[in-house]
Amino acid sequence: MARAGEPLVVGLDLGGTKLLGLALDPSRDGAEPVAEAKVATPAGTEAVLDGLAELVSGLRDEVAARSGRDVRAVGLGAPGLVDRAGTFRYGPNLPGVLGVPIGAELGERLGLPVVVDNDATCAAWGEHERGASRGRNHSLTITLGTGIGAGVTIKGQILRGAYGFAGEPGHMVVDPDGPECRCGRRGCWERFASGAGLGYLARDAVRTGSAGADAGYVAHAGGDASDVRGEHVIASARQGDSAALAVLDTFADWLGLGIANLVNILDSEMVVLGGGAAVDADLFIDRTRAQVRRLLLGTGRRPRVPIVEARLGERAGAVGAALLAADRT
Amino acid sequence: MARAGEPLVVGLDLGGTKLLGLALDPSRDGAEPVAEAKVATPAGTEAVLDGLAELVSGLRDEVAARSGRDVRAVGLGAPGLVDRAGTFRYGPNLPGVLGVPIGAELGERLGLPVVVDNDATCAAWGEHERGASRGRNHSLTITLGTGIGAGVTIKGQILRGAYGFAGEPGHMVVDPDGPECRCGRRGCWERFASGAGLGYLARDAVRTGSAGADAGYVAHAGGDASDVRGEHVIASARQGDSAALAVLDTFADWLGLGIANLVNILDSEMVVLGGGAAVDADLFIDRTRAQVRRLLLGTGRRPRVPIVEARLGERAGAVGAALLAADRT
Repeated sequence: MARAGEPLVVGLDLGGTKLLGLALDPSRDGAEPVAEAKVATPAGTEAVLDGLAELVSGLRDEVAARSGRDVRAVGLGAPGLVDRAGTFRYGPNLPGVLGVPIGAELGERLGLPVVVDNDATCAAWGEHERGASRGRNHSLTITLGTGIGAGVTIKGQILRGAYGFAGEPGHMVVDPDGPECRCGRRGCWERFASGAGLGYLARDAVRTGSAGADAGYVAHAGGDASDVRGEHVIASARQGDSAALAVLDTFADWLGLGIANLVNILDSEMVVLGGGAAVDADLFIDRTRAQVRRLLLGTGRRPRVPIVEARLGERAGAVGAALLAADRT
Repeated sequence: MARAGEPLVVGLDLGGTKLLGLALDPSRDGAEPVAEAKVATPAGTEAVLDGLAELVSGLRDEVAARSGRDVRAVGLGAPGLVDRAGTFRYGPNLPGVLGVPIGAELGERLGLPVVVDNDATCAAWGEHERGASRGRNHSLTITLGTGIGAGVTIKGQILRGAYGFAGEPGHMVVDPDGPECRCGRRGCWERFASGAGLGYLARDAVRTGSAGADAGYVAHAGGDASDVRGEHVIASARQGDSAALAVLDTFADWLGLGIANLVNILDSEMVVLGGGAAVDADLFIDRTRAQVRRLLLGTGRRPRVPIVEARLGERAGAVGAALLAADRT
């Protein structure tokens, strides 16, 4: 058990549907939290800030009661562009919070220093410090959820960029004549290679006739091809449905295409796949690896780039946020 | 005039068609060389190394005779992937040199320390230290030649990546069903947005009927649409040919698409356009800027990213190589 007196850090992951918080002892190795809590994301800026503050207070009370320790800083991962001042600049999943200096607002509520960064950046930092990419100075973490997030390390440090907006490849255009993305552009990478993208590819296969209306994943969706989502493809593939497996091959190719584009630019030594859709990576990771090998410039004349699954699961963002807070405060 | 005794550095730019060398005083501001020389690139590894060594010897003799100064180090920019040990790993324009430790080989011939890096990386460093992106810690330089090269600075330092291969976006796939690239992939960015890409877009416009066989640029190519190259499009556009201007619009859109993809990942604060095809940037840069604004994530809620022309012209690579040598030796 940790000694009393040494303060902890709290990491928060602000998602579109849930708030996850955990208290971490940054001086201890590993990613096991001292305390942890999860609540549904409320609607509206004030409610979100109140919810986050309550989550921290609850964790603070819990660790104080259990070990007499306090919390000295808070890290927050937010789903969108966060500038270096901690203001939320862009993120379609939290429309009400745009332009809000969430770091300063939350810090005022808590009386604690708060650092804010992009959620995928936090997840990448968690995996780099305590997970799959430990010891890899030049790493790339891709989080596959509804969209695609990413976090990059360069020389063992997070790549933040000029304004804090680095590492946003989800809207990298990979097919200018492709389907419209909800961002208004066409053919964004996450239109194909995210959890939502998997559903799109499955519906598109029926629409273009490369899968029949009797495909297993259509049955999983209740019989209407327009209702197919990524989870139906996964469930159907787990039962060996050939149409679902073919869609996953297409998905793996798109995923590998974007990863190769990124490694051609960043020269990462390892790629980590995280986020909700990565728990089913066994269904597509081998083909993704082959696609990256095929598309990487000078492939065969440069070291292979391992593509591995994340290790911290849904905690990655909160763990990374906590460790960023420990470093920056 | 520089004082005698302070040694200079030599920068070399190894191109597919020419070798450019210059002697620079790194302690003096500006990019004006003390001496400069250019020869045709000979064929074969030994001849290339001999040619580079002779170029350096000539420059060394010239500065010694003129000012009594010596050369203390040499920097070399090479057109392809160069690993951290100075070995040329991949580059279609210099097939014979593959796998050759050109840094060590040249160093042995000269009795001087030699540092080697990618040519576009060197150009980016030259522009960052003495040209258009001075004072911009997070910069991106794109060199538009037959293909596309790039160099990136992060926190004022060159991004080299895990193995020295960072900054190679030319083969970023932006249209998986697009035309075959000479690298064997399909729809690489440089298939559209380089000097060679401009020629392809013009030929493709005739093939698909969006330009007539009577397009001005076809006449510039001698009447055969299959002979059209980028320079014919430029010459024709300068005379106001509407077909050529339409092709340049398409070119500008592709260029902007790739730049936006890169800035979404790197969060650069400035983009510099260099290389041979950038001397005609006045014909496409405005539309490229508009495309980047359109495609950048969170555009309108983040600072604008200036897209500017390079300042060092064809010397950029050699100047940057010289300054890298000054820094690293």
